[in-house]
Amino acid sequence: MKKINTSPISGMQELLPATQAGFDNLKNQISDVYHRHGYLHIETPVIDRCEILLAKAGGDTEKQIYKVVKTAEAADGADQAMRFDHTVPLARYVVEHENDLAFPFKVTQIGRNFRGERAQKGRFREFYQCDVDVIGRGNLPIYYDADVIETLLDAFKAFGLKTPVLARINNRKIVSGLIKEYNLDLKTKEILGIIDHSEKIAPEKVVEALNELNIGSDRVEKILQFIEIRGNRDTVLVKLNALGIEDDTFEEGVKELDTVMGLLEKAGFGESISADMKIVRGLDYYTGTVFEFNLPEYPGIGSVCGGGRYENLASYFTEQKLPGVGGSIGLTRLFYVLNENNLLSANSKKPIDYAVIPVTDAEIEYAEKVAQGLREEGNAVMVVASGKKFGDKMKYAGNLASKGIVIGENEVRSQVYLVKDFK
Amino acid sequence: MKKINTSPISGMQELLPATQAGFDNLKNQISDVYHRHGYLHIETPVIDRCEILLAKAGGDTEKQIYKVVKTAEAADGADQAMRFDHTVPLARYVVEHENDLAFPFKVTQIGRNFRGERAQKGRFREFYQCDVDVIGRGNLPIYYDADVIETLLDAFKAFGLKTPVLARINNRKIVSGLIKEYNLDLKTKEILGIIDHSEKIAPEKVVEALNELNIGSDRVEKILQFIEIRGNRDTVLVKLNALGIEDDTFEEGVKELDTVMGLLEKAGFGESISADMKIVRGLDYYTGTVFEFNLPEYPGIGSVCGGGRYENLASYFTEQKLPGVGGSIGLTRLFYVLNENNLLSANSKKPIDYAVIPVTDAEIEYAEKVAQGLREEGNAVMVVASGKKFGDKMKYAGNLASKGIVIGENEVRSQVYLVKDFK
Repeated sequence: MKKINTSPISGMQELLPATQAGFDNLKNQISDVYHRHGYLHIETPVIDRCEILLAKAGGDTEKQIYKVVKTAEAADGADQAMRFDHTVPLARYVVEHENDLAFPFKVTQIGRNFRGERAQKGRFREFYQCDVDVIGRGNLPIYYDADVIETLLDAFKAFGLKTPVLARINNRKIVSGLIKEYNLDLKTKEILGIIDHSEKIAPEKVVEALNELNIGSDRVEKILQFIEIRGNRDTVLVKLNALGIEDDTFEEGVKELDTVMGLLEKAGFGESISADMKIVRGLDYYTGTVFEFNLPEYPGIGSVCGGGRYENLASYFTEQKLPGVGGSIGLTRLFYVLNENNLLSANSKKPIDYAVIPVTDAEIEYAEKVAQGLREEGNAVMVVASGKKFGDKMKYAGNLASKGIVIGENEVRSQVYLVKDFK
Repeated sequence: MKKINTSPISGMQELLPATQAGFDNLKNQISDVYHRHGYLHIETPVIDRCEILLAKAGGDTEKQIYKVVKTAEAADGADQAMRFDHTVPLARYVVEHENDLAFPFKVTQIGRNFRGERAQKGRFREFYQCDVDVIGRGNLPIYYDADVIETLLDAFKAFGLKTPVLARINNRKIVSGLIKEYNLDLKTKEILGIIDHSEKIAPEKVVEALNELNIGSDRVEKILQFIEIRGNRDTVLVKLNALGIEDDTFEEGVKELDTVMGLLEKAGFGESISADMKIVRGLDYYTGTVFEFNLPEYPGIGSVCGGGRYENLASYFTEQKLPGVGGSIGLTRLFYVLNENNLLSANSKKPIDYAVIPVTDAEIEYAEKVAQGLREEGNAVMVVASGKKFGDKMKYAGNLASKGIVIGENEVRSQVYLVKDFK
């Protein structure tokens, strides 16, 4: 009976109501946890100036961005586009409203972002990101690095997943100091790239890639040892100190990592964190703490959350120094992979709490009264109106509601009704 | 210190955190009321095919739509655009998922839509719409017309506005029948247009416009009398019957209006509804019930909510008959005008419930414990970390939080703390 193709564009998530309720549930849990940790919610426009969105971008971002045009305009002349993350609009927001904000500015954004990527399974062109950030003016205490990670871990805790989550934490200053110590500054980009990819390729490929840099087998060996360092705070500190590196940046990084891990341990998250030298996060604006969340029992899923410290949020928009630390849950992809792997606790709850079913139109008035009373108690209630056979109404009600209340002549007279549990 | 223009594009709403909290509050109240009335939440993609979005459109819609293009494409060749309302994507959704939905399908969509209108005060290019719709398959009982209006009235009730809201209700069949009775079928569009605008122009302009139709002064007079009919159910029924019109469509419309008004009266909304022959709603797809909400003490604000019955939701996409009834709150504009007119109850609540302030870093551990305990009780809590003078920390805390808890050496030792009320 369809006249044209009514499927959504590929790469766009569209859910049936019951699945949508599961998605909304995760989103509300995240929003609630962020709020309880003192993050203030803001929304930035979906459409912004290309001048803002592309101030720093290049490469993939520039290729993937959706430009918006009115009829008869051309993309090349477009000066507006759809945001592709929350960070660039946040930078604009903080600069624009600087005088009206209290710093450190603890802020959360939860909304859809847009990237015209090549469509493939589990990748989305419209996707929810749930961000927390803390922005300082001039400086920002290291405490907030732990605050962000703790908040994100609390969000995952709220999901009640069937599998543990692990926050893998590092500090970019450690690897930067190591690179300096080994006189490899000119190869920084390549080395970070190899470390960043070291989990996605075979171990011998990592060795091969490092050998190709022509830095000498001694230094290759040291880097290979370095990137294997991981574990709890004490273990990692011992191993890092054993490297015998005296570079200041390295030492600062170790100290910061120690502080962040210590704060998280004291806050009761010792079991959910691990220091890990393999975590560098590709984006080059991270300058200190970096982290990535994984589900260790499901390595194939990869990272489910990530973030870090950036020394200067808005250098393209202002000369004011605005250091920040933040992290993001990519909710659309997360929801997809959690469902694919059956990791969400089954939600057998029906979308509606009560269906009130008047036998004929004569009972609608009392049915409404019953429904209103149940609504005032906070229940989701629908009155199943006439126009169908009684059996059809019961079937419809049983599909959607946990409980049913049939209102006939007797119920109207006695003002007493039975509640039927739909199982 | 700014290097470039960091204001949002004109016509895009961007709020400071405290105002955003007020906006979120309204949005959550709407969402909660819709849920309690048994509407199932769905989300459709922001980006959809032009073939879908523009299937029916024309005129302003086609001019205002944001097309999306990748670099080097041109708007004329664009086959994707941003949705400009929730109704077209809903039509696509229902056709696409028809076999997986239970009918009547009570559905809500709450999200941003996009129209590249000329920017002006109080008009937005990105705007939240909060829709409820009930879609039937084949047929849909008139009960649901009342259900939609009741749900929207309940949402306004939840806002606790300082001024009453009035749902003005009509039925398009009444005016259609009248037009038939007076043999004015060829002037249908013009007459509906004049009625639709009759409140925005001076009374003598209405007369003038009707006279220009050359339909005879007798019929002009009758139409003028007709459009003045308004009031409660009984009053309006008497006046409509007094017109002596015997057309079937007219009578059907009167009967439907009577039913809808009656259901709302019985549900306790008699004080908040009025039948009103001036309400026709411009869009020509409405076929039965039409309604518009106003704030009678603030006529300048105009309509704050509207909707109606459409006989065929998705005729462009399917041959299946899908009658529906729905309504929408344009939240971005509503929030703007309510604030402009100071109609929202003042919310003096600070965004954060508790600020926990460790005097030095040595007290962070216990401060965290205190914060976690308060969070578990559902409070929004921030720990104000080091890096500032104590006086600055207190000022920051007092700005953001309702209550403050200072944690010093003594508090750590005694495990007892004072709660200070920031007033």
